[in-house]
Amino acid sequence: MSKKYVYLFTEGNANMRELLGGKGANLAEMTNIGLPVPKGFTVSTEACTQYYEDGRQINDEIMGQVKEALKTLEQRTGKQFGNPENPLLVSVRSGARASMPGMMDTILNLGLNSVVVEGLAKLTNNPRFAYDAYRRFIQMFSDVVMEIPKSNFEAIFDANKEAEGVKQDFELSAEGLKKTVKEYKVKYRELKGEDFPEEPSVQLYEAIKAVFRSWDNPRANVYRRMNEIPYSWGTAVNVQEMVFGNMGETSGTGVAFTRNPATGEKALFGEYLFNAQGEDVVAGIRTPKPISELEKDNPAVYKQFVEVANKLEQHYRDMQDMEFTIENGKLFMLQTRNGKRTAAAAIKIAIALVKEGLLTKEEAIMKVEPNQLNSLLHPQFKADELKKGVVITTALAASPGAGTGKVVFTAERAKELVAAGEKKVILVRAETSPEDIEGMVVSQGILTERGGMTSHAAVVARGMGACCVAGASEISVNAEEKYFTCNGKKYSEGDWISLDGSTGKVYDGQINTEPASISGDFAVFMGWADEIRKLHVRTNADTPADAKRAFEFGAEGVGLVRTEHMFFNGAERIKAIREMIVATSVEKRKEALAKLLPMQRGDFEGIYRAMEGRPVVIRYLDPPLHEFVPHTAAEIKEIAEDTGLTPEQVQETCDSLKEFNPMLGHRGCRLSITYPEIAEMQTRAVIEAAINVTREGKIKVNPEIMIPLVGDIKELKYVKKVVVETAEKVFAEQGITLPYEVGTMIEVPRAALLADEIAQEAEFFSFGTNDLTQMTFGFSRDDAGKFLEDYYAKKVFEQDPFQHLDQHGVGKLMKHAVEAGRATRPTLSCGICGEHGGDPASVEFCHNIGLNYVSCSPFRVPIARLAAAQAQVKNPRK
Amino acid sequence: MSKKYVYLFTEGNANMRELLGGKGANLAEMTNIGLPVPKGFTVSTEACTQYYEDGRQINDEIMGQVKEALKTLEQRTGKQFGNPENPLLVSVRSGARASMPGMMDTILNLGLNSVVVEGLAKLTNNPRFAYDAYRRFIQMFSDVVMEIPKSNFEAIFDANKEAEGVKQDFELSAEGLKKTVKEYKVKYRELKGEDFPEEPSVQLYEAIKAVFRSWDNPRANVYRRMNEIPYSWGTAVNVQEMVFGNMGETSGTGVAFTRNPATGEKALFGEYLFNAQGEDVVAGIRTPKPISELEKDNPAVYKQFVEVANKLEQHYRDMQDMEFTIENGKLFMLQTRNGKRTAAAAIKIAIALVKEGLLTKEEAIMKVEPNQLNSLLHPQFKADELKKGVVITTALAASPGAGTGKVVFTAERAKELVAAGEKKVILVRAETSPEDIEGMVVSQGILTERGGMTSHAAVVARGMGACCVAGASEISVNAEEKYFTCNGKKYSEGDWISLDGSTGKVYDGQINTEPASISGDFAVFMGWADEIRKLHVRTNADTPADAKRAFEFGAEGVGLVRTEHMFFNGAERIKAIREMIVATSVEKRKEALAKLLPMQRGDFEGIYRAMEGRPVVIRYLDPPLHEFVPHTAAEIKEIAEDTGLTPEQVQETCDSLKEFNPMLGHRGCRLSITYPEIAEMQTRAVIEAAINVTREGKIKVNPEIMIPLVGDIKELKYVKKVVVETAEKVFAEQGITLPYEVGTMIEVPRAALLADEIAQEAEFFSFGTNDLTQMTFGFSRDDAGKFLEDYYAKKVFEQDPFQHLDQHGVGKLMKHAVEAGRATRPTLSCGICGEHGGDPASVEFCHNIGLNYVSCSPFRVPIARLAAAQAQVKNPRK
Repeated sequence: MSKKYVYLFTEGNANMRELLGGKGANLAEMTNIGLPVPKGFTVSTEACTQYYEDGRQINDEIMGQVKEALKTLEQRTGKQFGNPENPLLVSVRSGARASMPGMMDTILNLGLNSVVVEGLAKLTNNPRFAYDAYRRFIQMFSDVVMEIPKSNFEAIFDANKEAEGVKQDFELSAEGLKKTVKEYKVKYRELKGEDFPEEPSVQLYEAIKAVFRSWDNPRANVYRRMNEIPYSWGTAVNVQEMVFGNMGETSGTGVAFTRNPATGEKALFGEYLFNAQGEDVVAGIRTPKPISELEKDNPAVYKQFVEVANKLEQHYRDMQDMEFTIENGKLFMLQTRNGKRTAAAAIKIAIALVKEGLLTKEEAIMKVEPNQLNSLLHPQFKADELKKGVVITTALAASPGAGTGKVVFTAERAKELVAAGEKKVILVRAETSPEDIEGMVVSQGILTERGGMTSHAAVVARGMGACCVAGASEISVNAEEKYFTCNGKKYSEGDWISLDGSTGKVYDGQINTEPASISGDFAVFMGWADEIRKLHVRTNADTPADAKRAFEFGAEGVGLVRTEHMFFNGAERIKAIREMIVATSVEKRKEALAKLLPMQRGDFEGIYRAMEGRPVVIRYLDPPLHEFVPHTAAEIKEIAEDTGLTPEQVQETCDSLKEFNPMLGHRGCRLSITYPEIAEMQTRAVIEAAINVTREGKIKVNPEIMIPLVGDIKELKYVKKVVVETAEKVFAEQGITLPYEVGTMIEVPRAALLADEIAQEAEFFSFGTNDLTQMTFGFSRDDAGKFLEDYYAKKVFEQDPFQHLDQHGVGKLMKHAVEAGRATRPTLSCGICGEHGGDPASVEFCHNIGLNYVSCSPFRVPIARLAAAQAQVKNPRK
Repeated sequence: MSKKYVYLFTEGNANMRELLGGKGANLAEMTNIGLPVPKGFTVSTEACTQYYEDGRQINDEIMGQVKEALKTLEQRTGKQFGNPENPLLVSVRSGARASMPGMMDTILNLGLNSVVVEGLAKLTNNPRFAYDAYRRFIQMFSDVVMEIPKSNFEAIFDANKEAEGVKQDFELSAEGLKKTVKEYKVKYRELKGEDFPEEPSVQLYEAIKAVFRSWDNPRANVYRRMNEIPYSWGTAVNVQEMVFGNMGETSGTGVAFTRNPATGEKALFGEYLFNAQGEDVVAGIRTPKPISELEKDNPAVYKQFVEVANKLEQHYRDMQDMEFTIENGKLFMLQTRNGKRTAAAAIKIAIALVKEGLLTKEEAIMKVEPNQLNSLLHPQFKADELKKGVVITTALAASPGAGTGKVVFTAERAKELVAAGEKKVILVRAETSPEDIEGMVVSQGILTERGGMTSHAAVVARGMGACCVAGASEISVNAEEKYFTCNGKKYSEGDWISLDGSTGKVYDGQINTEPASISGDFAVFMGWADEIRKLHVRTNADTPADAKRAFEFGAEGVGLVRTEHMFFNGAERIKAIREMIVATSVEKRKEALAKLLPMQRGDFEGIYRAMEGRPVVIRYLDPPLHEFVPHTAAEIKEIAEDTGLTPEQVQETCDSLKEFNPMLGHRGCRLSITYPEIAEMQTRAVIEAAINVTREGKIKVNPEIMIPLVGDIKELKYVKKVVVETAEKVFAEQGITLPYEVGTMIEVPRAALLADEIAQEAEFFSFGTNDLTQMTFGFSRDDAGKFLEDYYAKKVFEQDPFQHLDQHGVGKLMKHAVEAGRATRPTLSCGICGEHGGDPASVEFCHNIGLNYVSCSPFRVPIARLAAAQAQVKNPRK
């Protein structure tokens, strides 16, 4: 029962992505639509999975198929591995189902050895080229296959360049390169204790193994976790006949997009380098030329490339990101894929493709990653502050948005400072590499000295929606000594700078930012999403300001007001709640609550007004009371004086509130059962505010009162009774009646299990998936961070269940609760107000299990709207 | 649609217990089998429920039916309410489905007023009797209906007795009683601001309301919680024509059992008092005569009573507890019920009833409350210490077992001391009352100065399996000043005494106790339970000694070894674990673990030997590591010196282990994922111990390795791999292979939800219902105590879900997990090792959902065995 693990490019197609990886599938597709693609084959992702199952060994069956494919490749190219007369050289590239910059990328020129290199020199009559290729191969192979640090070889290479007095790599003579190769091999033996492998088949075997191995390296694991790529997918390996961009001045290599990936503008966009191999462009070591100049340099090749680009965009019905090589004036396509782009570009392109008739609206909304919208909602500089801004340099506008922060020079330092509480840092690097990803994530922006629009920094920053200014050649970074200079001025760690990733401008000092709004293409696009989606999107908002912002971002209501957040808002409030806590009788407690009443009522009025008649879900006091207690002696003294207690008595009450496991302690509805007067005050505030705003005559108010942490119907019944009695009392006092609902959070597993009962009392459900996740897993969110790192490292978990809803376990409870709740009360409205409500994958799940709405933070409202629309396209529901 | 709320005794029968309460149903039954029962009727439990639904009002429909029944009663008795010529007097008694001493009990002589009392005096030609009845009525009505403390009236009564120079109640003259009644009424008006009610129908209405109200008094609520009686049941009220035991020397009242409730001996057992009403016997105010003396005093009545008793025992096929009154030489039965009895008596009676052909074995095992067995397993005095014991007095052997402790004089003080950590107290009271229950629960034994075998102290102590010596008239208790004297010697609070409730002896000082064993009738009875039951019973045991004791109590294996408990066992062990915790490298951690290995291995060997080949489930390290860290500076210094770290470093490690919610923190299998070397060491200990004991050649060892706190199959997979690899290594080293299993606790809700998956890896399940309850409810066991009191007070909860398994919610998860697990692995063994495993109701649930075994603490093993057998009788399974 032999399985097919190896596919010639002629055997695959674009739909075989899962098996061949994105790169392999597209190489096959291009081959089959007749584009100039060097011949080759792909070792499938299943071979990778098998490699891990076999204890990190490539078994004989797979290697047999590789050899078979290689033989075919030799026949078809007419070249041979190891034959100096007519040598076959290949590239070896990783290629997973999704693009993964964190993995080993490429080995070029594989097949060279001390004999073949001489043959190649003779054959091409170009010893410089041959030894440059060999030099590169040794360097890459040593680095990515043998894990010898690059610096060992760079030092040798630099010494040889210096010896000849040249600066650029391509200026080094053939002799210099020969010497370099010789010294490389000595270094290799010195470090590895054995000779650099001469046998091409050994080189190939080791290279394939290295690609498979790289699937499990720490960078790849981090990248997968960030991008939700399952470990189980594995990577494919592409083995492809070499074509050479470094054969001289009629050769070159480049990358290009069919449209501008930053703006979405319809024009070929890219860069190329003469006499170079691919790595030179991506690495940002030499600054490449814009693709448009190719038209002058080689009009024929340019024309052919434009045709290829158009054909690919039409074929894939999406903007393409292509790699090509020109060998002695002949064009070869090495890769195509749907290009990564900024959110603004993604939207512009999606709208354009609909206008061009290539896509329907439904297809178009699938072209934008919901999380990407984040960048459009990102802060922009405040106009008035920007006026006074001093530009210190202008470079590539590599990733849009504005950022301001304190300068740091390493990713580690960025992480450290942010972990220590620093809110704003700007990462400044000579150039970035995959090791820097985590530092980039926590930064407000990234500034690099070297590299183009497709450099690592630019690509990654756009992907994550962070602002980035790249290739700022006027700055000079000294990471060691923690400073950079720019036109004579020195900036040290901790100094403020500001970046505009949309203009490429770098400003001196701090320029504060403000949020963006939804207009233009963005508004059109979101309109389409709203037309399509069935799932409503509400927001979590604790203040009128939050509610207003969310409303502007399209929130259709408030899904969660955390009333306790209001208590922290100002000294007077916290004082009143503290008086409530230390009260020694119900009367005193009610007195203290009476002070909070007008404040809460005022906040609710503001939120009702901001939402203009849309529903507002108000959750009653949730956290344990010890979160509010005074800590300092002065605070304790103040409360003691206000309440006529001794400081010792106040201290004693505070101490008595301490809990072993506060998460599972005296909080949520449990507080209202002990102190029904709290629920009374909150009901009075909710209802009185609703009456006041209703009487203003402009809007109808729809308060939904949400009782937290219910685990048993009797808890809900008890608190609901307090709510209803108080509401009736207020209605009687005011001579007016208003509709309101009383519902509950489903956040305790028991409530989810017994949802059929709970729905007898609850008029709505809202899943509190933060707590539901904590209790279903038995994970304390405040503590799990420590051991979850071990879980990731050991592949026990791949995702943080607090970031991405655990659809399998927690989701099972949710699905049950929705079904059981609606069996009791068919009209039961169900929503989610945990932080998962703004996570696209979780939004899709909520759509699939039939929730009525998701509620998320204001900035995630547009993301949830788009995710909801995409969910509807994938799995239409009525 | 009128509902029937009131039933004449002629309308009911013994099966109507739910509707009529136990007392009402049996009064009806006795009426219908032709026994001499005063006529009357029962207001049903549904009327009580209705009373609460109507906001604590008896509605007109119910009162109408009461009046109707009263009219019938008047017709049938030929007497009339309020008619001085021929007055109807009634008793009003509460009567719930289950006997509830915590509730209002009885009002006698209702119907008397200033006119009727004169009529009664004339009619009986016995003014002393008439005024004694009136005095009692005012006193009882004021106390239980109007809640006027008894002491107000006792002072008046005592003053009048003193004025006449008499000691006993019945010695007071008619004039003295008349004066007493007059003064009572003055006192009543003084305290209530209105006259004592004259109108019999008002008296009746208030009395019925008082019974209903008493269902919700704090004592009743506590009693119900202790005895698992649902609040929703409600109580019935029995209204019955008075017969008078206080009509003179040919009248009397008494209580009797058909067999001895302490020993089970087949002989009429009881007490009676001449010229008294029932309350005099129960209250223990006068010391009554043994029932046997009635034969001399009134042979005809005695003969009739013996016939009635035999008839009732045959009819109910169980030992009966009867109340009777003799009015002018005529016998009346006032109550019968299955008698409360000691566990020893229960067993003896059950066995006798089988021998007498009245019961099958299956019926017989239902006659013993599993929890009662507790008393048989209670400590007895150590024989050698007992030899030296000095008896200070001997009184009634009211409840068997031995106890030793420090003397306390109030229930509150008993609770205080025990809460403060005192392990052993003896409660000494003049007499006990329902207010004392909670103090009795925490005491090692109860000693009373007054009262007989049916006094409150005796009845309650037997019920709860506590030892009790009652009616010790040689002691004189001064509770106020906290001492008692006995034959000239004074014992103050804190002095030690010892009680033998089986002999009635009270000893000076501390006599230590030792556990009992299962033999004789007990062994026979448990043999029957074992024949019947299908559910196996294992034990939780952390030491060889625990395992041995449990084995003697019939444990069929160990269901839980908490390995961490071994770590606390001795300075050397705790030191080694601390070294493990502060280890800065895997190597150092392994070094520390190597020190623990021989200790764990030795413990396991001991447990294997104790269990003689029965299965032993060993749970791997479960608690968070901070439970083991050193606390004092000296301990920190010691560990620092041992490990070559600075004290600051040790302190830092300890601090870093602190968690916000340790219950949901880094514990259970999470520890083994971070530190697989711990699981390695534990596996080595488990397997090496098994090999060593197997090589001794006497027994086969069946270790079952249990991984705690699993929530995802990958966690189990990871740790199982470590276990299996280590076991294989040990097998290879030792040249021997042994069977063992790897399973998991189901204690995280997610594991229960995904049990189908977990069962792919787990070879057995054991429900850890402590943690499962915590997480399913979101209750921290360490914190919930505080707010659960509010839950009980407000009827949100009636039971502590940590004591009695929440079958409805947690049980639903368990049922799902069993079904899902067995769908994957049909042979999956499922058990429970949470503390619920020893709770009879929970055991029944475990039987019903098809668990293979329950595991509980050694002392609860016999209880679980019996509960399992009863579950099988109720719901037979294969």
